[in-house]
Amino acid sequence: MDKMTDSLKQQLTFFQNRNIEQLNQWLEKIEIQQQPLTEAMKYSLLLGGKRARPYLVYITAQMLGIKAEFADSAAAAIECVHSYSLIHDDLPAMDNDDLRRGHATCHIKYDEATAILAGDALQTLAFEILANGQLSDDAETSRIDMIRVLSKASGASGMCMGQSLDLQAEGKKVDLASLERIHANKTGALIKCAVQLGALCAGDKGKAILPQLEIYADAIGLAFQVQDDILDIISDTETLGKPQGSDLELDKSTYPALLGLEGAKHKAEQLYQTAIEALNDIPYNTDAMQAFAQYVIERKN
Amino acid sequence: MDKMTDSLKQQLTFFQNRNIEQLNQWLEKIEIQQQPLTEAMKYSLLLGGKRARPYLVYITAQMLGIKAEFADSAAAAIECVHSYSLIHDDLPAMDNDDLRRGHATCHIKYDEATAILAGDALQTLAFEILANGQLSDDAETSRIDMIRVLSKASGASGMCMGQSLDLQAEGKKVDLASLERIHANKTGALIKCAVQLGALCAGDKGKAILPQLEIYADAIGLAFQVQDDILDIISDTETLGKPQGSDLELDKSTYPALLGLEGAKHKAEQLYQTAIEALNDIPYNTDAMQAFAQYVIERKN
Repeated sequence: MDKMTDSLKQQLTFFQNRNIEQLNQWLEKIEIQQQPLTEAMKYSLLLGGKRARPYLVYITAQMLGIKAEFADSAAAAIECVHSYSLIHDDLPAMDNDDLRRGHATCHIKYDEATAILAGDALQTLAFEILANGQLSDDAETSRIDMIRVLSKASGASGMCMGQSLDLQAEGKKVDLASLERIHANKTGALIKCAVQLGALCAGDKGKAILPQLEIYADAIGLAFQVQDDILDIISDTETLGKPQGSDLELDKSTYPALLGLEGAKHKAEQLYQTAIEALNDIPYNTDAMQAFAQYVIERKN
Repeated sequence: MDKMTDSLKQQLTFFQNRNIEQLNQWLEKIEIQQQPLTEAMKYSLLLGGKRARPYLVYITAQMLGIKAEFADSAAAAIECVHSYSLIHDDLPAMDNDDLRRGHATCHIKYDEATAILAGDALQTLAFEILANGQLSDDAETSRIDMIRVLSKASGASGMCMGQSLDLQAEGKKVDLASLERIHANKTGALIKCAVQLGALCAGDKGKAILPQLEIYADAIGLAFQVQDDILDIISDTETLGKPQGSDLELDKSTYPALLGLEGAKHKAEQLYQTAIEALNDIPYNTDAMQAFAQYVIERKN
């Protein structure tokens, strides 16, 4: 890890903590507290996690001169969607995982019904936060656009479809195009959305550079998944907090399975280059975005 | 059934069909079609159902002089939320129902994973529709308010909390206050939301009468549940499309259980009066709203 990555790590920790603080405040506004539902939401939302999506919101907004306080809502909203998707993905009827980030998954810690409802309510909370959260004056007219991009990215034309395609692909050999379609929807859509939301925090100024940002986000979104597949092969349970090779056990197609380990590494490197080239067309300081792209393909967990 | 109710039935059928047509159009916009996910969404969203919530949106907007085309989005959105909640409520981990409206429930027709995802994606679709659907010019500034009321009504301060409280109350004897808290959240919140959305379709004109409309909606929302409990005792499987007495079997507390059958009928009548009195303070033609209140306490299924 070079110096750039060290400074990224500091900033990541700062924004992780900020995101947790923000989410806590939103959770405290729920009218009926100390219920299994609210406890399960807190448990899933606040416990660990890289918070890569909130981080992308923050650094994209920051690049455009937007203070963190005006990106807090978008960052909180996208983490709610990510968190709900993990709760539901872990359910027995889906991936049936008992462990997530080294802790009991929501349905193990509570029960299945509570986990389903906690996921449902976290999705709702995402839209509630976007509808009510603080934005800069310039971004007020983009509030509805934020809801548009989040709903597009999360639903049947995005994340939910990706998860559905992924479940159908289990035990089947899929080709590279199908694998990319799965991941573009399952994980890529929400990563792209994080960058879009960060840009929309700056209103029209952000909208002007959306095309470049979307190329960047598509590339790092896919790279993130390629690296995930690589790590699944080379890491062990202790580092990742989930059983090693769990995707292989379910006969899931992965980039290393289709391209070989070296081929997958090369693919990640190509995607990194695409991301960096897109940033070169943006007339702002893109250091943090560059460092994040590097982190995506170099991370060890 | 009197004449008023006959005209209501005609109007209800008209708006039911309109709602189905609208939802079909939204479903066709999903980018990847002919997938289990999209089929399960269609199956759950288009098959049967009273569509009471869309109907409330339409007649509230109509009372305020708003054409149906400018209430279509709000009506479609709220039916998506209702439909998603039914899919998830029917899951084995929740109420474990095989039948809904006389047909196989979503997880029986497809599978549990698809049902979970279809519910998730239908919730997202609700917000996508509100963010993108057609509104009258006067209502454009109220678009974000629509998203606010829908997210408030659906999430941890509304429907999801109601379902969670209801699950916890299973097998326990709860008092009348607790029962009303369950239903105010579980079903009442979304019925109130339907009326709020209908009002917001008229922009500021609708906002001005929200206080009276909310009293009306709270009363009919609760009356709807009281009548549901009454019907559960006096109806049979054929009429309702679900096994008779299914709530009693799960030891759920009901209004007839707490108040006796006659006491529950009296309660429904009182709520009807409250609703009618609230309408008397509204300076528009409230005939359809009155007829609906009457239908709620007189309906046989």
